[in-house]
Amino acid sequence: DNPQDSKMSAPYKQTSPTTHLAEKADVVREVARKIGRARVKWDNPQSVMIITKPGDLSLVRKTRQLALWFMRTPRYGKPSGITVYVDEKLQKSKRFKLERFQAESPDLIDKLKFWTPELCATHPKLFDFIVTLGGDGTVLFTSWLFQSVVPPVIPFHLGSLGFLTPFDFDHHQYHLTQAMENGVRINLRVRFTCTVYRRVPGPNCTKAKDVQLRNVKRNTKTGKVIVGDWCERKMGHKKTQKVFGEVDGDDVKEENIQQWMEEDGEDGQKMRVPCFTTVPAEKYQVLNDLVVDRGQNSFMGELELFGSDGAYDQHLTTVAADGLIVATPTGSTAYSLSGGGPLTHPDIPAMLITPICPHTLSFRPTLVPDTIDLRICVPYTSRSTAWVSFDGRGRVELKQGDHVKVTASRYPLPTICKKSQSDDWFNSLSRCLHWNERQRQKSFV
Amino acid sequence: DNPQDSKMSAPYKQTSPTTHLAEKADVVREVARKIGRARVKWDNPQSVMIITKPGDLSLVRKTRQLALWFMRTPRYGKPSGITVYVDEKLQKSKRFKLERFQAESPDLIDKLKFWTPELCATHPKLFDFIVTLGGDGTVLFTSWLFQSVVPPVIPFHLGSLGFLTPFDFDHHQYHLTQAMENGVRINLRVRFTCTVYRRVPGPNCTKAKDVQLRNVKRNTKTGKVIVGDWCERKMGHKKTQKVFGEVDGDDVKEENIQQWMEEDGEDGQKMRVPCFTTVPAEKYQVLNDLVVDRGQNSFMGELELFGSDGAYDQHLTTVAADGLIVATPTGSTAYSLSGGGPLTHPDIPAMLITPICPHTLSFRPTLVPDTIDLRICVPYTSRSTAWVSFDGRGRVELKQGDHVKVTASRYPLPTICKKSQSDDWFNSLSRCLHWNERQRQKSFV
Amino acid sequence: DNPQDSKMSAPYKQTSPTTHLAEKADVVREVARKIGRARVKWDNPQSVMIITKPGDLSLVRKTRQLALWFMRTPRYGKPSGITVYVDEKLQKSKRFKLERFQAESPDLIDKLKFWTPELCATHPKLFDFIVTLGGDGTVLFTSWLFQSVVPPVIPFHLGSLGFLTPFDFDHHQYHLTQAMENGVRINLRVRFTCTVYRRVPGPNCTKAKDVQLRNVKRNTKTGKVIVGDWCERKMGHKKTQKVFGEVDGDDVKEENIQQWMEEDGEDGQKMRVPCFTTVPAEKYQVLNDLVVDRGQNSFMGELELFGSDGAYDQHLTTVAADGLIVATPTGSTAYSLSGGGPLTHPDIPAMLITPICPHTLSFRPTLVPDTIDLRICVPYTSRSTAWVSFDGRGRVELKQGDHVKVTASRYPLPTICKKSQSDDWFNSLSRCLHWNERQRQKSFV
Amino acid sequence: DNPQDSKMSAPYKQTSPTTHLAEKADVVREVARKIGRARVKWDNPQSVMIITKPGDLSLVRKTRQLALWFMRTPRYGKPSGITVYVDEKLQKSKRFKLERFQAESPDLIDKLKFWTPELCATHPKLFDFIVTLGGDGTVLFTSWLFQSVVPPVIPFHLGSLGFLTPFDFDHHQYHLTQAMENGVRINLRVRFTCTVYRRVPGPNCTKAKDVQLRNVKRNTKTGKVIVGDWCERKMGHKKTQKVFGEVDGDDVKEENIQQWMEEDGEDGQKMRVPCFTTVPAEKYQVLNDLVVDRGQNSFMGELELFGSDGAYDQHLTTVAADGLIVATPTGSTAYSLSGGGPLTHPDIPAMLITPICPHTLSFRPTLVPDTIDLRICVPYTSRSTAWVSFDGRGRVELKQGDHVKVTASRYPLPTICKKSQSDDWFNSLSRCLHWNERQRQKSFV
Repeated sequence: DNPQDSKMSAPYKQTSPTTHLAEKADVVREVARKIGRARVKWDNPQSVMIITKPGDLSLVRKTRQLALWFMRTPRYGKPSGITVYVDEKLQKSKRFKLERFQAESPDLIDKLKFWTPELCATHPKLFDFIVTLGGDGTVLFTSWLFQSVVPPVIPFHLGSLGFLTPFDFDHHQYHLTQAMENGVRINLRVRFTCTVYRRVPGPNCTKAKDVQLRNVKRNTKTGKVIVGDWCERKMGHKKTQKVFGEVDGDDVKEENIQQWMEEDGEDGQKMRVPCFTTVPAEKYQVLNDLVVDRGQNSFMGELELFGSDGAYDQHLTTVAADGLIVATPTGSTAYSLSGGGPLTHPDIPAMLITPICPHTLSFRPTLVPDTIDLRICVPYTSRSTAWVSFDGRGRVELKQGDHVKVTASRYPLPTICKKSQSDDWFNSLSRCLHWNERQRQKSFV
Repeated sequence: DNPQDSKMSAPYKQTSPTTHLAEKADVVREVARKIGRARVKWDNPQSVMIITKPGDLSLVRKTRQLALWFMRTPRYGKPSGITVYVDEKLQKSKRFKLERFQAESPDLIDKLKFWTPELCATHPKLFDFIVTLGGDGTVLFTSWLFQSVVPPVIPFHLGSLGFLTPFDFDHHQYHLTQAMENGVRINLRVRFTCTVYRRVPGPNCTKAKDVQLRNVKRNTKTGKVIVGDWCERKMGHKKTQKVFGEVDGDDVKEENIQQWMEEDGEDGQKMRVPCFTTVPAEKYQVLNDLVVDRGQNSFMGELELFGSDGAYDQHLTTVAADGLIVATPTGSTAYSLSGGGPLTHPDIPAMLITPICPHTLSFRPTLVPDTIDLRICVPYTSRSTAWVSFDGRGRVELKQGDHVKVTASRYPLPTICKKSQSDDWFNSLSRCLHWNERQRQKSFV
Repeated sequence: DNPQDSKMSAPYKQTSPTTHLAEKADVVREVARKIGRARVKWDNPQSVMIITKPGDLSLVRKTRQLALWFMRTPRYGKPSGITVYVDEKLQKSKRFKLERFQAESPDLIDKLKFWTPELCATHPKLFDFIVTLGGDGTVLFTSWLFQSVVPPVIPFHLGSLGFLTPFDFDHHQYHLTQAMENGVRINLRVRFTCTVYRRVPGPNCTKAKDVQLRNVKRNTKTGKVIVGDWCERKMGHKKTQKVFGEVDGDDVKEENIQQWMEEDGEDGQKMRVPCFTTVPAEKYQVLNDLVVDRGQNSFMGELELFGSDGAYDQHLTTVAADGLIVATPTGSTAYSLSGGGPLTHPDIPAMLITPICPHTLSFRPTLVPDTIDLRICVPYTSRSTAWVSFDGRGRVELKQGDHVKVTASRYPLPTICKKSQSDDWFNSLSRCLHWNERQRQKSFV
Repeated sequence: DNPQDSKMSAPYKQTSPTTHLAEKADVVREVARKIGRARVKWDNPQSVMIITKPGDLSLVRKTRQLALWFMRTPRYGKPSGITVYVDEKLQKSKRFKLERFQAESPDLIDKLKFWTPELCATHPKLFDFIVTLGGDGTVLFTSWLFQSVVPPVIPFHLGSLGFLTPFDFDHHQYHLTQAMENGVRINLRVRFTCTVYRRVPGPNCTKAKDVQLRNVKRNTKTGKVIVGDWCERKMGHKKTQKVFGEVDGDDVKEENIQQWMEEDGEDGQKMRVPCFTTVPAEKYQVLNDLVVDRGQNSFMGELELFGSDGAYDQHLTTVAADGLIVATPTGSTAYSLSGGGPLTHPDIPAMLITPICPHTLSFRPTLVPDTIDLRICVPYTSRSTAWVSFDGRGRVELKQGDHVKVTASRYPLPTICKKSQSDDWFNSLSRCLHWNERQRQKSFV
């Protein structure tokens, strides 16, 4: 643990390591600020994908008109428009009138294509940008379709503005022309990668016993754990070798034992804990949140929450609650808000940990940096399993010993701003949460 | 408004502007992560400053012992220790026994120096690091002393751990030796620069009238304001020239007027508003928070909250509440928590806006990026003034037309971590807020 | 609607009807106060029932010792003690050593009896009082056993004081002797009667259609509903007769229609709603709360909450939340507290309505008088069912058209106070919620 | 402590004391329910008082028209109307046109009278009922005018419905005629009597020392206090006699000392505390709340909260917060709501204790029965004073040793219901708090 990342050879008085760090932090802030404000010019987008609320028939006609407008409106000095991808289900929809289109516009047939979920998963770069028609749910559905790279999304609402949908479809031609010709501001909405890890038998295990025990000492006050050697088997065998495994504590190093022991004092508690390996099983990108709750069980057991900043792996807290929400800033206006979480600007690189009906008064909504990897674990000895859902979709069961790991995704979801990210966000608070509603008159400085 | 910050000449399919942005954001996250974890090696610090809770006599003896230990313990291959700065008030303190020290240790007389608030303000780089003895209040006092650069602080508590004081003074020799010889992890705690702006008469004003009027149109729903030309004077003069002033709205451009008018529809409200100039008057660095409240008034008027990301200046909300807290992440465990704000890890670059007893249910605690400049304004037409305090110190009155501006400071306060920033922070939650208290037994993955 | 409950014949100036009411209210308050403070002398109780945490083997020995003490200690001038009822499961428990008891104490055999849940249900008055050993859960279990009259309960804890268990078992002989000989203060804890109503086909229904439609007009702002005549059947039949049914609106009277129409103005919305009969199916007494949530469904539909004060039946609100808790004051320190409900003294005759993760910021915890009958309804057209649990026990499904009715029970649960009801309650807050914990020193007037 | 309030001579098995209590409680509930629903017939009211928002000129004309209507409309078979009292300030108001009225309606001159605050204070029964025009503030002003008996109030709003003003002035003739001719439902809104007690020198005090000391033992965990004898004076005098004084603990009785000592164990702490007498100084009736806060001080010291149910006087908690609200149920929708208090139906006989920005997470909004007398004390040793305001009016300073006592008032404020108390209250939640706003469609059982 002795790396000396930034040993300074320069004379101290001029730039101390601290000052150096402070300057770096300043640069980071400035770059972050610029990314947030960046206006990018599109390099003549050639293809657009249209996504609507699944199953809403009334949107088929709107989709048809929009597709025709895209295909027919001349762009970039050429006589025709751009390629449009619509949902393959429309191929057979009466309202979409595919045959009439083919009859009336033979020159455009090449420009109309159909997307499938598989195409989104395998060739996301086919689409230069996406137009969504609907509410926040349609943007969430788009996030679900694109589990790796996501093309930029222009989200239209159909009457009532949502948190994610600033554009009014009534003026779509104006907004789309502006975006394609004058460039856009892009809001890179952070997504979280959620990986479900399943418990598997340890490497030295015979079939009969899939869990081994290790000697562990934990501090009863801080919950800090140090993990020592494997326990001797009761049958009189020698100690087993130390092996790789998922162990949530610091592996104790010989030279540090003495210090640890002293610091813990009477709070130290020796235990034998089950140690086992877990393997990644499933992976999801979420735009809003993941929620762990009792699912179909009648009872919610305690969860263990761990965090790692890459160097240290730390037990954060034991969750005694009805459930736990881990939300992105984008998700701060969704379920997390119901649980009492704060409104969080989408530019803040944080994870919101919001307990659902916590059983202690001290477990308040908590924000940690999104550079931390969180792990939510169902203890091996838990009386019950837990269930986890991703952006409100598909529930997955977490059995005893399983956990889900949450990290900032490399694949954010880019949405186009109407004015700017901050402007759009505060407007959505006004409209959706009735901010400022009581006000009647206002004065200005 | 047509700057094209990142026009790409490279072929689009390979790196779209969006992908480019996402990659930049990834780099920012990685750098931020490294800064958080950085372990720096001090380049043989030669001088230490000792700060204790002001007025606590029982600490004088501890200070004396600590100073002697620093001066006498050989460092860096030399026979003697390092220079120590203690509070100049100790020069005359009986308990400090300066004369006895001078008699007993004539060789060390040069190593004992005395600090004054003036010295801290003018020569902060004299001190290679600072040791504080006391609670969180002593660290806040240190922040108060250093209004620009702050040397790194090693904060010791004297029995009960605080949010800012992880080190136990009972083991100070061990901790200080470790820090000086093996390097430290530094927690750059963001401070906010708070600047009070006072209203002054406008540039074209005769003495009799210090405020001029401009035509303004505001959207009654969104609160968005566009500012037009100066009003004609009633005396029949021509329109005055447009001049620079503090006006919280977009100066309307001719080409955009039509669009604005249409978008607002019936919600547009035409007004004449007073326009005037404000000038910066006072400046404070805060480590925890600034609080605006009614102070000595019996009544709290409404405040106007504006935010600027450098490009746009935006009305965020009208504050109808008993007061408003703007807290740093470090301050999230202080007053903001009483107001219902979330626990916020000190690495998150955010400002916490926490209303005190808000008069509407929709004004929830809100986090904005610390790249935003906030302005809290007392409207020119307010029925009452407001008061603002900085880290709980000195109240300043904000009169009608005044405002206070809050920005991330260029001068963070560096504190030394005991283990790591995250580890220290979660430990302080456990100890100070009784996190995890209900738990009796715990299982591990 | 013209009943004149308290027409005064006395001259107005002396006692106006208002003054008269105020005086009545004063009397009610005084009587309520006395009931709360009443100290009752038991008339030589002859039988005690012992209840422990089910399944906790370590309590068998304590139960045996306590039973022996009760049977052997002379009471009321007689040489022997009182009759004891223990759990019939102990008859076969090794640890209880029934045979040894029978051998050693043949004179006491008549005094040892065994209770079964059936006996509690059918002959609750057999037991002059109850002793519980355990935590709050044991008291809840006792409430569950006695669904009508409950004998007075002396609740002992076994180490850590709970909200319902003020007595320390370590001093049980002292406390029990005091109670039997000197009388007790009794805390009549209100229970709620929860009745599940199931939808049944209407009276005029053929098998094919079990729901009929009526013309209804509702005010879109207030949610107020007036119910008119049955809809004509489409087949051309005449209007059906008006029949009794569960309809949550005011049956419109001819003379009032005009006024209603005017008041609603444009907010009136005409609808056809399904009308049907519901019948009571199950009934439970709860001591803490009933909870309606999504149960095993993945989705929680909206619920409708109605209240009746005996005269008017009123739509209170539409519940858009993850669930709804209706808690007694006793339950205010249990699940309701997790949902953000207030601490409520057990003497307050109120129902606590606490939403779980409400989807709107305006739905705050709400208290209504326990003289109001609440009905929580799953709308006939809901997309999903709901589940309801009673004191955390047994989940019951509420299907579309079903509802659960909550009223103050005629059968409160009497618990013996340690000192007084208020004293016990505030002590439990101190111990269980760490009230007053931060305090170090205290001054007195 | 052995009073046996309800010794039963009747055979136990038939009506146990517990059952007897339960039946009493049932009767109380039934009476309370009836009071809440009572519809009273007025005995031909002869005089009405009109109160409007003070200083609102636009209301003068409305007042004039209303007064004329009352005076001119024939009632009770007589040719003329009833007597009207208007604000004496209108005598000289130009808009009220008193002289024109006198000229035009000489026959009505006797029917127009003028009220003054003094008249309200001394002869409240002159007014058979009151009409208020304005918002909730006007009803609060009415409460302020009548510090003892209050005539029934019919509260009209002028456009936007408030929590206390269900009647729309646009239909005032209809509503007033209905009320006078058909009777009304009356909502007896509980008010609190707030008495400020000031510290005075003790009875045995010489001028030099106005505070004496007594031996006190307090339990450090529960905060419970027992008060023993007066301390010996240091000058060697004998123990002083025990005298009457304000001492917030149980006076220890000889026979109980031993028990107390044992129970406290190691938690007992012996102290000498100042004892002194306090005398009542000022008294206010509040309709909404009283608020204790730091007032003009920069710092809020801790407060001590005591409660008495008439028999026991108990330390409830030490208040470490920015302030404390004690609200009536009527006040639950006012300031208490900003502090996080629950919505509380006005029929619930409770006091809401809502802390303002509490410094501990465990001090949650708390309801106690309104049969409890609360005392909020500024400790004798407090570093600062506190300030208390009543319904937002006039601040009074509480110095060290002072306290304010809060009890349910014998003088409730009767307001006329529009439909019924519950109906009116839930409607006001809908209108004022946007309950039910999100809902679009609703289904009915």
